[in-house]
Amino acid sequence: MEAEITKAIVETASEEWVEYAESDVIVVGAGPSGLTAAKYLAESGLKTLVLERRLSFGGGIGGGGMLFHKVVIEREAKDILDDFGIRYVEHRNFLVADSAEFMAKLATKAIDAGAKIIHGVSVEDVIFRDDPLGVRGVCIQWSAVEISGLHVDPLFLRSRAVVDATGHDAEVISVAARKMPLDITVTGERSAYSEVAEKEIVEKTGKVVKGLYAAGMAVAAVHNLPRMGPIFGGMLLSGKKVAEIIAENLKA
Amino acid sequence: MEAEITKAIVETASEEWVEYAESDVIVVGAGPSGLTAAKYLAESGLKTLVLERRLSFGGGIGGGGMLFHKVVIEREAKDILDDFGIRYVEHRNFLVADSAEFMAKLATKAIDAGAKIIHGVSVEDVIFRDDPLGVRGVCIQWSAVEISGLHVDPLFLRSRAVVDATGHDAEVISVAARKMPLDITVTGERSAYSEVAEKEIVEKTGKVVKGLYAAGMAVAAVHNLPRMGPIFGGMLLSGKKVAEIIAENLKA
Amino acid sequence: MEAEITKAIVETASEEWVEYAESDVIVVGAGPSGLTAAKYLAESGLKTLVLERRLSFGGGIGGGGMLFHKVVIEREAKDILDDFGIRYVEHRNFLVADSAEFMAKLATKAIDAGAKIIHGVSVEDVIFRDDPLGVRGVCIQWSAVEISGLHVDPLFLRSRAVVDATGHDAEVISVAARKMPLDITVTGERSAYSEVAEKEIVEKTGKVVKGLYAAGMAVAAVHNLPRMGPIFGGMLLSGKKVAEIIAENLKA
Amino acid sequence: MEAEITKAIVETASEEWVEYAESDVIVVGAGPSGLTAAKYLAESGLKTLVLERRLSFGGGIGGGGMLFHKVVIEREAKDILDDFGIRYVEHRNFLVADSAEFMAKLATKAIDAGAKIIHGVSVEDVIFRDDPLGVRGVCIQWSAVEISGLHVDPLFLRSRAVVDATGHDAEVISVAARKMPLDITVTGERSAYSEVAEKEIVEKTGKVVKGLYAAGMAVAAVHNLPRMGPIFGGMLLSGKKVAEIIAENLKA
Amino acid sequence: MEAEITKAIVETASEEWVEYAESDVIVVGAGPSGLTAAKYLAESGLKTLVLERRLSFGGGIGGGGMLFHKVVIEREAKDILDDFGIRYVEHRNFLVADSAEFMAKLATKAIDAGAKIIHGVSVEDVIFRDDPLGVRGVCIQWSAVEISGLHVDPLFLRSRAVVDATGHDAEVISVAARKMPLDITVTGERSAYSEVAEKEIVEKTGKVVKGLYAAGMAVAAVHNLPRMGPIFGGMLLSGKKVAEIIAENLKA
Amino acid sequence: MEAEITKAIVETASEEWVEYAESDVIVVGAGPSGLTAAKYLAESGLKTLVLERRLSFGGGIGGGGMLFHKVVIEREAKDILDDFGIRYVEHRNFLVADSAEFMAKLATKAIDAGAKIIHGVSVEDVIFRDDPLGVRGVCIQWSAVEISGLHVDPLFLRSRAVVDATGHDAEVISVAARKMPLDITVTGERSAYSEVAEKEIVEKTGKVVKGLYAAGMAVAAVHNLPRMGPIFGGMLLSGKKVAEIIAENLKA
Amino acid sequence: MEAEITKAIVETASEEWVEYAESDVIVVGAGPSGLTAAKYLAESGLKTLVLERRLSFGGGIGGGGMLFHKVVIEREAKDILDDFGIRYVEHRNFLVADSAEFMAKLATKAIDAGAKIIHGVSVEDVIFRDDPLGVRGVCIQWSAVEISGLHVDPLFLRSRAVVDATGHDAEVISVAARKMPLDITVTGERSAYSEVAEKEIVEKTGKVVKGLYAAGMAVAAVHNLPRMGPIFGGMLLSGKKVAEIIAENLKA
Amino acid sequence: MEAEITKAIVETASEEWVEYAESDVIVVGAGPSGLTAAKYLAESGLKTLVLERRLSFGGGIGGGGMLFHKVVIEREAKDILDDFGIRYVEHRNFLVADSAEFMAKLATKAIDAGAKIIHGVSVEDVIFRDDPLGVRGVCIQWSAVEISGLHVDPLFLRSRAVVDATGHDAEVISVAARKMPLDITVTGERSAYSEVAEKEIVEKTGKVVKGLYAAGMAVAAVHNLPRMGPIFGGMLLSGKKVAEIIAENLKA
Repeated sequence: MEAEITKAIVETASEEWVEYAESDVIVVGAGPSGLTAAKYLAESGLKTLVLERRLSFGGGIGGGGMLFHKVVIEREAKDILDDFGIRYVEHRNFLVADSAEFMAKLATKAIDAGAKIIHGVSVEDVIFRDDPLGVRGVCIQWSAVEISGLHVDPLFLRSRAVVDATGHDAEVISVAARKMPLDITVTGERSAYSEVAEKEIVEKTGKVVKGLYAAGMAVAAVHNLPRMGPIFGGMLLSGKKVAEIIAENLKA
Repeated sequence: MEAEITKAIVETASEEWVEYAESDVIVVGAGPSGLTAAKYLAESGLKTLVLERRLSFGGGIGGGGMLFHKVVIEREAKDILDDFGIRYVEHRNFLVADSAEFMAKLATKAIDAGAKIIHGVSVEDVIFRDDPLGVRGVCIQWSAVEISGLHVDPLFLRSRAVVDATGHDAEVISVAARKMPLDITVTGERSAYSEVAEKEIVEKTGKVVKGLYAAGMAVAAVHNLPRMGPIFGGMLLSGKKVAEIIAENLKA
Repeated sequence: MEAEITKAIVETASEEWVEYAESDVIVVGAGPSGLTAAKYLAESGLKTLVLERRLSFGGGIGGGGMLFHKVVIEREAKDILDDFGIRYVEHRNFLVADSAEFMAKLATKAIDAGAKIIHGVSVEDVIFRDDPLGVRGVCIQWSAVEISGLHVDPLFLRSRAVVDATGHDAEVISVAARKMPLDITVTGERSAYSEVAEKEIVEKTGKVVKGLYAAGMAVAAVHNLPRMGPIFGGMLLSGKKVAEIIAENLKA
Repeated sequence: MEAEITKAIVETASEEWVEYAESDVIVVGAGPSGLTAAKYLAESGLKTLVLERRLSFGGGIGGGGMLFHKVVIEREAKDILDDFGIRYVEHRNFLVADSAEFMAKLATKAIDAGAKIIHGVSVEDVIFRDDPLGVRGVCIQWSAVEISGLHVDPLFLRSRAVVDATGHDAEVISVAARKMPLDITVTGERSAYSEVAEKEIVEKTGKVVKGLYAAGMAVAAVHNLPRMGPIFGGMLLSGKKVAEIIAENLKA
Repeated sequence: MEAEITKAIVETASEEWVEYAESDVIVVGAGPSGLTAAKYLAESGLKTLVLERRLSFGGGIGGGGMLFHKVVIEREAKDILDDFGIRYVEHRNFLVADSAEFMAKLATKAIDAGAKIIHGVSVEDVIFRDDPLGVRGVCIQWSAVEISGLHVDPLFLRSRAVVDATGHDAEVISVAARKMPLDITVTGERSAYSEVAEKEIVEKTGKVVKGLYAAGMAVAAVHNLPRMGPIFGGMLLSGKKVAEIIAENLKA
Repeated sequence: MEAEITKAIVETASEEWVEYAESDVIVVGAGPSGLTAAKYLAESGLKTLVLERRLSFGGGIGGGGMLFHKVVIEREAKDILDDFGIRYVEHRNFLVADSAEFMAKLATKAIDAGAKIIHGVSVEDVIFRDDPLGVRGVCIQWSAVEISGLHVDPLFLRSRAVVDATGHDAEVISVAARKMPLDITVTGERSAYSEVAEKEIVEKTGKVVKGLYAAGMAVAAVHNLPRMGPIFGGMLLSGKKVAEIIAENLKA
Repeated sequence: MEAEITKAIVETASEEWVEYAESDVIVVGAGPSGLTAAKYLAESGLKTLVLERRLSFGGGIGGGGMLFHKVVIEREAKDILDDFGIRYVEHRNFLVADSAEFMAKLATKAIDAGAKIIHGVSVEDVIFRDDPLGVRGVCIQWSAVEISGLHVDPLFLRSRAVVDATGHDAEVISVAARKMPLDITVTGERSAYSEVAEKEIVEKTGKVVKGLYAAGMAVAAVHNLPRMGPIFGGMLLSGKKVAEIIAENLKA
Repeated sequence: MEAEITKAIVETASEEWVEYAESDVIVVGAGPSGLTAAKYLAESGLKTLVLERRLSFGGGIGGGGMLFHKVVIEREAKDILDDFGIRYVEHRNFLVADSAEFMAKLATKAIDAGAKIIHGVSVEDVIFRDDPLGVRGVCIQWSAVEISGLHVDPLFLRSRAVVDATGHDAEVISVAARKMPLDITVTGERSAYSEVAEKEIVEKTGKVVKGLYAAGMAVAAVHNLPRMGPIFGGMLLSGKKVAEIIAENLKA
């Protein structure tokens, strides 16, 4: 029986690795903006792969606000909550959701929409071309290898678009800014100013260079916007917006 | 705006902490057997709290088999997969599911059934009484405190039943075996023998002492059963079985 | 009984967190200048909250001078010692106090004056506004979370003034200098020159930008002053002076 | 000026080290039971030295209950709270105090009573004699040396009595049990059972062998009692009781 | 081009993983005895897989003797050196070879003989059956996962024989001794006694239980033999002997 | 017997250290380009020493591509594979080899050609002269000493040429760039662009300053070329080219 | 010039390694008892080698008593101090010496007497024979290798006697007790009782088994004697006594 | 007896700390140049204190050259070897000494000349004045405290001159360059060029700013000189020269 288990797992997983050696969109990071983007991207018919360094979903959601297990969402993002089937209570001007439910349903609905999520994979670099200059995919590594400090060569995945949804480190855009002939400086987020942050993060969501897009807190890092704390309306709206922009661009 | 976010989160979360200072069942561990148990417990009308040390769901699911992102389930557990809405393909004698979907939907359906899941909380000890001897709840601590090495007193949660779904360390039963006047030795799992393991883990699922139950790999640890690898039928069936036993016992 | 303990603690502590979501002054750091400031601020009627990253009082006092358990204070600060009820002996030109007593009574008298001290909380960022530019509060996190390396969102506390009493790293002002549109460089302290250090640290104590004040060694860090060693007159006088300036400003 | 600071500190601290090379009682640990014991010991006229490994007071108090900054005390210990000037509110059957105030005033009042507290010192062993068998003092080391891993010889302090108030590790009694010809096994605390724990910890407080006494959680470790969580009545009553027993014994 | 590289690597490697889900012999450890065994096993026509935890060959050979880059071999093993094409000089009673050449050619000749070596894979447990009791394969994990501390399920490989060539920890036999119903104690090696060690290690090489064999220093660990230092004749002779025994047994 | 082993090893190894205190070429790094260079250098009659920091061969080869145990080589390097006796299969446009065989045979053939490889030795600096400016050898240290953090003086080895084959850190050239009066900046590799990378790395292989040469990924680091992933044609061609250039230069 | 430095060092040091592959006595540990023993052994005409794991002399002397830079010696050991030229002052009943001078002169006089001291070498095991049972030398390793965690084979040194002067861990005797067929248990030291300790440590100094001797704190570990703190008379007298016993035995 | 040991040590050591709160010269670092300087400074009648971070002597001497236990000295420094009584053999153009003897006698003769050496003390900063600008002493801390990461205030020692003999990090000059208003950049040593290094290090030895002097490898760090490896003539000559310069300056 044991050999059959091994064969079943290796065969089905390897086939998918070969299949996803090329895709339409790679979303890096399975946090709130990444999962939101993945759902709407997949719904628009694009072959969408989400790569997550940890063996879990949700980015910073699981700790709620300073470990208090609730998150706050503005009314503007109410429709997205409804799309995902996430319940909430109204508290003064805000909607308050349970962090566990928020996290679980973001993932479930992205998967149901057709996005493929693979855990335990880090994006350590991008693939680029210069005619015209732009990103054409990513270099990946098992996060276990990264943590272990072993020296192992990465593999490559090609895609027409890459979304940096890695949060306030903007890991993908940072490596591209250092190692591609770009003119970008990732300056990092500013101190907290929630209203402004929530508004600007949605406005500035979008393309960084051909083939590379920023969503969620990565937008703050690239555009030096204020941070906003455990309020997630901006994340959801940014994820949805980046999906719409990419769908538009890739159809063009 | 920022002060309002803080108030909204602290108030709603604290109310729930007070509410869950007493519950029917505390499930320790949000892995496959714990989440399965939680769903069926909540559906049977019991006030069910799941405590998870990490800030995520799924226990060991996220890494699939040796990082290949698939898991195997036997046909016997097909109905449970269907209850959770988890898709699968048939591969020789097994069902093969995607580890990401498996993980996300176990959580989503447990929550939809009414179970409350709180992340970032470790169970470091149990509460006991000796008239009759048994477990009456748990001592909890932020896992962040545990990791940090700071010395901070725990808080207490009372419940009528505690399920150890912490996996092959059987953390709750181990601490009870060491620190309560019980006659249990947690011997740990044996080497791999998948057929036997899958069968016996379901058979031996159940009560350890009044108020304390074993599910999933914790059963293997307590009863010195073989391990079984990345095949999850036994986990699902064990989680469902422990829920049925507790529902029965608590109604009595 | 155990569930009652939990309810008592969660309810009383959470109420205070909600209450202190907004205050007059937040003092960051429960070392000598912070505790001195807190006492005189509270005495002047301001709602004063002290946040301390460790689970204890005293900053660097507890180690005395190179672990010799005594500290030295100049005669100029004799009145403050008397206000706090701290005993001393005269030794040549100085007053010498026991480090344990010095530490304990700074805390006791700040509390008796009405300051609220909360331990185990780190300030990781500030809240700011730009009309006019200034600090409006802080972003906080459990230090246990910080040490653990877990990624958890902070909460916010609003206040009319924030005092950086974090010592020679000037942690709050440093983060503001990096992440707010300010024109400050935190250059750090210089080598030792005790007489000059003690004098200038008091002179330079005060406002850094609207809403943000420096006290104690943070003043040396911001103004590139010499360090002074295990002599604490300047710390006490700086703490008292910042309290007087803030009381004056907030009444205005 | 700098050389004078050095001389003042070294001279005054060294004199006290020589003075306390011999004392009546050494209390190991400046947590709740140790500080309570120290106050009443000093008040009874005994030369009392408290040694604390950390550079601060309070043991586990500073983290309140799971970082919620409150502690619970039973009505039986109300008089001790009043002796120390610690304020409280009544909450159902309990008194609830602020953890910061509780910690600060335990230290302040012990010092005002005449106890000498020295920080940063670990007790790594005891001095013993066999005519009759018993403890005659302690071997001490800077905790900084311990943490650093450097190999440095300890120094010795003689005393007529040693109180192990180091908490649930019972560090002093553990080392004596291993390295003296005693017949004690330190079995550690049991799981939580608050009512029983609070009662028995006071009853079992007292002498372990000639010259060596247990107070606070060390009593639970030695007598295998249940733990009790963030409730401190037993700690205070145990500290007071051990002081009374020692005062009685040393007068004899 | 990058996607093609990925497909080429994943497809060819995965096919082999499926192919080696079942083999005749699994040799654990690519040190001197393991590589010697692998060469002679493969030459006898058995499907042979070597699993090595590190990303390299040679076990302890690379450091020579206390980093001096030479190793010593007795004349009895001269023929094996010649089989592998390893050069040597005569030095008093011994043959002295270069550690680099020794290491490289052991690997090269094992591969040329048809053995398949896969690096970066740890054996964390065995597969067993009880009719009759014996080992039927191994549970494997990426060593990177082991080092990283992530919790990931292993995969299984079936084989008719497993050789523990992991050196003085006898890792495979140790786990079997702990987790199978065997009657073996792994006592470890004794102090140095080179003549005796070299002789007995060859004599005691062989079967431990059905399906599990010891070679090289693992023999010393199981049979409590003396150690022998940087002399490798016994390792080579043990590796060859185990190959002959297995070839004999599997043909039977 | 034991003393004889020690004498045999110390005498033979020490003689070689004295012999290699001066050589023609020192290749730093026993990865793919270093071993290729070593083979062709030795074949051209130069006294060639390879120093490798680890106790093994192969650099990053052993992990294949993201632990899949295969590597890809372009057809242009087919002749080199044949020179080394490395087997391959054709897969679309590439040759695919087994990573274990690739690694073992690179080492074996370099040794057979006459190159001396010593493991466990780090190059921490170079020897230079300024008439004319150039490198004249290296400063070496046991890597064990480096890892241990002990402070030990290095030894020196003189040579007419030094090849930096240390991979993408270009360790030798980096230290020379920092510590010799050169005008080089080691800018590091760029993001992935495999075709360009493979081509340019061969073109730019060669002399950096008199006596110091770059091969393999060190070329990418010095000339800011793109990275290429688990494809090794460029490495082999670069190693062969640097050997030809040096043979030419040293004969001149 | 650099190549000459290397040759000079490698040649002179290697010759001595070969010379000391066999000696009369190996003293393990260059602390107070080891250096004292070495001086008197060398003076009696025996070929004496001292192996010290650190790169320095003195064992625990350098930290004085709890970092106070003085050590105490009893009048009984006055003659040994004089033999070594170590100055002291009289303080009540004791002699007090400077820890730096004590340490430096123990080493200088052992060397002047003819003992060879080699630093940076750990003894990880012994060589034994069983006709009759006894120790015949040691297995050595660079301590740098030990610290680094690399797996490297040791070398061997033969000698007629081995002195364990490694302090309270009795490292050599401990390994012999575990790995030779002896009947010794290393029980470790007891709590402090200085008078008894100083007296018994000298009395019990001597042979443990043929070829293996205990000196200094290793005697306390083997015979379960009390510890004595920063007083060194016993260490000196023990070192001298072991030298006398060995000189006697080896002449026999 | 134990209390007497404590009193003897604390009293004698503390008196010296008070005595050395002010001295003529503080030498930082007990390596070859520091100990040489200390001997000649003390011989010229100056009150000389050597502070050493470790609990031992010798800096990098103990490891010889790459752990080979010999060091090389040029003939120019022969007289200094004779002053210290260090034996040597002639080897081609060099003198070769044993590293253990070299280290021990440097310390012994510095002490005999009257220098006071205190171990376990780090210099973390300098004391300065600006009329005229210069160094007036040092801020010290137990190295154990530094390693432990505890936050403890330093003490101060005044002196007329401070010698940085800390080796290639030039620790004291580096901190002064950063934290005093000086115009020095510590550029670090260059690659190896032994002849030039040995010569220039002696030439550039001397004053850096009033009250602060460089000796040994610190000279290379300040003046960007080449390094020289395990050859110590320059160290000895530099130590002697700095002593002569300071003796001259302080008499002036």
